[in-house]
Amino acid sequence: MPKISLKGQEMPESPIRKLVPFAEAAIKNGKKIYQLNIGQPDIKTPQVALDAVKNQDIEVLSYSHSAGFESYREKLAAYYQKTAIPVSKNDIIISTGGSEALLFAMGSITDPGDEVIIPEPFYANYNGFATASGVKIRPIESTIENSFALPPISDFEKLISEKTKAILICNPGNPTGYLYTEEEIKQLAALAIKHDLFIISDEVYREFAYDGQKHFSIMSLPELSQNAIMVDSVSKRYSMCGARIGCLVSKNQEVIATAMKFAQARLSPPTFAQIAAEAALDTPDSYFEEVIEEYVARRNILVEGLEKIDGVKVGKPKGAFYCIAELPIEDADDFARWLLEDFEDEGETIMVAPAAGFYSTPNTGKNQIRIAYVLKKEDLERAIIILEKALKSYLKK
Amino acid sequence: MPKISLKGQEMPESPIRKLVPFAEAAIKNGKKIYQLNIGQPDIKTPQVALDAVKNQDIEVLSYSHSAGFESYREKLAAYYQKTAIPVSKNDIIISTGGSEALLFAMGSITDPGDEVIIPEPFYANYNGFATASGVKIRPIESTIENSFALPPISDFEKLISEKTKAILICNPGNPTGYLYTEEEIKQLAALAIKHDLFIISDEVYREFAYDGQKHFSIMSLPELSQNAIMVDSVSKRYSMCGARIGCLVSKNQEVIATAMKFAQARLSPPTFAQIAAEAALDTPDSYFEEVIEEYVARRNILVEGLEKIDGVKVGKPKGAFYCIAELPIEDADDFARWLLEDFEDEGETIMVAPAAGFYSTPNTGKNQIRIAYVLKKEDLERAIIILEKALKSYLKK
Ligand SMILES: Cc1ncc(COP(=O)(O)O)c(C=O)c1O
Ligand SMILES: Cc1ncc(COP(=O)(O)O)c(C=O)c1O
Repeated sequence: MPKISLKGQEMPESPIRKLVPFAEAAIKNGKKIYQLNIGQPDIKTPQVALDAVKNQDIEVLSYSHSAGFESYREKLAAYYQKTAIPVSKNDIIISTGGSEALLFAMGSITDPGDEVIIPEPFYANYNGFATASGVKIRPIESTIENSFALPPISDFEKLISEKTKAILICNPGNPTGYLYTEEEIKQLAALAIKHDLFIISDEVYREFAYDGQKHFSIMSLPELSQNAIMVDSVSKRYSMCGARIGCLVSKNQEVIATAMKFAQARLSPPTFAQIAAEAALDTPDSYFEEVIEEYVARRNILVEGLEKIDGVKVGKPKGAFYCIAELPIEDADDFARWLLEDFEDEGETIMVAPAAGFYSTPNTGKNQIRIAYVLKKEDLERAIIILEKALKSYLKK
Repeated sequence: MPKISLKGQEMPESPIRKLVPFAEAAIKNGKKIYQLNIGQPDIKTPQVALDAVKNQDIEVLSYSHSAGFESYREKLAAYYQKTAIPVSKNDIIISTGGSEALLFAMGSITDPGDEVIIPEPFYANYNGFATASGVKIRPIESTIENSFALPPISDFEKLISEKTKAILICNPGNPTGYLYTEEEIKQLAALAIKHDLFIISDEVYREFAYDGQKHFSIMSLPELSQNAIMVDSVSKRYSMCGARIGCLVSKNQEVIATAMKFAQARLSPPTFAQIAAEAALDTPDSYFEEVIEEYVARRNILVEGLEKIDGVKVGKPKGAFYCIAELPIEDADDFARWLLEDFEDEGETIMVAPAAGFYSTPNTGKNQIRIAYVLKKEDLERAIIILEKALKSYLKK
């Protein structure tokens, strides 16, 4: 029998995947599960985006430009310009989700054996894209005590070598919810320029910044224009995860020209979804105001609720819709499985993501979980009660 | 300034891309261009597929299963079963176009430095996917004299080494239009089993088989079940190129499990497009009958027309909607550029794809062009007249 690749063997599985059979069994047994484990928002997609797809009258559903509709890239450039990002349509390649933009970015700047430095905990699929590209991730630990702020620059410098091609950050962060300050971004920029590194900034949660703190993009620093690559997506911004539209943005024309070759090989991003994404740019501000208000209310319920539970530590999130909680247990993998398999409170339980899967350093984050606040307030309140009861019962075991 | 990757530098550009500026200039100058250079059919997308997207009432456009809708995979399995391919929904992963399925296949079975054997001329983007995966393509020439039939098995055996992981075929072929016979597929199968190789069969044109010859899939040979990987797509079958839906199909569960890890990393294929693709399976047979009839009529016009031109040789295509023509010239790259820049007949010209870009062996196919018969009959007739006049004028230069 022919053999699959080493790369294929090494491709990591999603850290949540292992729990799915237990969740399915629990549901079969009639348990109700509050899903705090996934990044799929429950928020409605803007009507203007859905209507645009209903109202198109395509006769031949043809390939679009490999970089995406020109009209869409123009409107998108205008959107970025409003947030002080001076880009034009030629600096943007529309991709099939932020996921594909991450693949294009890695493919354009790394060869097998190269290294990318990423503060951990980080979005677990970075592992998959790195493995697919033959790239080694060098993690730098950020800590819950600092709410996962940027680790000291000296920690980065210790890891930088000939092989280092880029630093990858997620701002605001999944799974941390941390929003980098302007000062932190400037420190990173100086480092990247000093060592001739790219900075890939995953800003798919860029609209989700709370408490009056403004999102500061790497794209707004002119001195970084040749080093900065932004990855963005409509998935979370407009609750359009199923559209599969994102983009890669850079002022570095060599990066754009190279990423375009990857884009041309796969022909084009999806047409219906581009129609929806372009229309989504007309979403009224009131939509975002409501959405942000909702997420802030949820975050407050969650963080305050968690802080009241004995022995639980929380990194206070300022953006995105995730938070990491440290629990008074040893093995969150075991706890998460136990929650599904062995625990219930009035027929209900919760599903959480063990955080170890978001760390690249072995045996790190083992007592942490990631909670996504993608449920409505009442459900979050109930979920916290369940967590508290479950912890008590688990610790008595 | 940080540097892009070697891989990125080596990523090939589309062989047609170089001509685009000349075409744009010609259009600006008021020339009308008959585009024979692209694989974008002019056929209407089935109404049932378009309607399904208009009639959905999604409120939250969420991620689908990473392998695609279960309902779609079930219906797709039933479609394959009707063509004597014994697969179930678990043997299918829905991908973002056949393009992504090709990437998943290469990623699952090859590591950097591995080799894949492909009869040339072949679909030019295989180069891009191979470069992105760090894989080396070993070409085997097929010839216009044989209408690009399968090269002798001994030619394959000469190239097989430790590094060979797979043979990749396209059936029916782009750019050749060649449809492999059952006998040829069985020869390839025996070779793959003997040397423990995978066969990746790109069958995106599987419905386009003419002259009563039936398409024979590698998936219909039980002895090959662990070696065979099929790549398919709705792009051409339903003239839905912009949907970006394809699939990877294999009975080898290790291949499926591995490809699933790549699929999970990128989350899901596009939702609107899956709705359209699933509905497209209900396209009435009459649609295909008309489409096939149309393509056969076009092919006949094209091949007969080309054969009448002095010094032109054609490989008689039995499938897909491409044909390769050998011209009495030395450099089709120059000719194709000249057609756009310097030639016109009553204000009209044609755009063709120089075939050298479909060969991996240097200096091969330089006097050949690929013609896609994706234009209506009158336009094809006119295009042939233009080609004939252009050749005369070019040869007089
Ligand atoms: C940090 C981060 N980056 C990228 C993505 C990819 O999202 P998509 O491909 O849907 O744009 C996600 C999705 O959850 C994410 O959380
Ligand atoms: C032979 C072949 N394979 C694969 C593809 C990829 O098509 P898609 O990604 O649209 O399914 C094409 C498109 O032209 C093709 O000609």
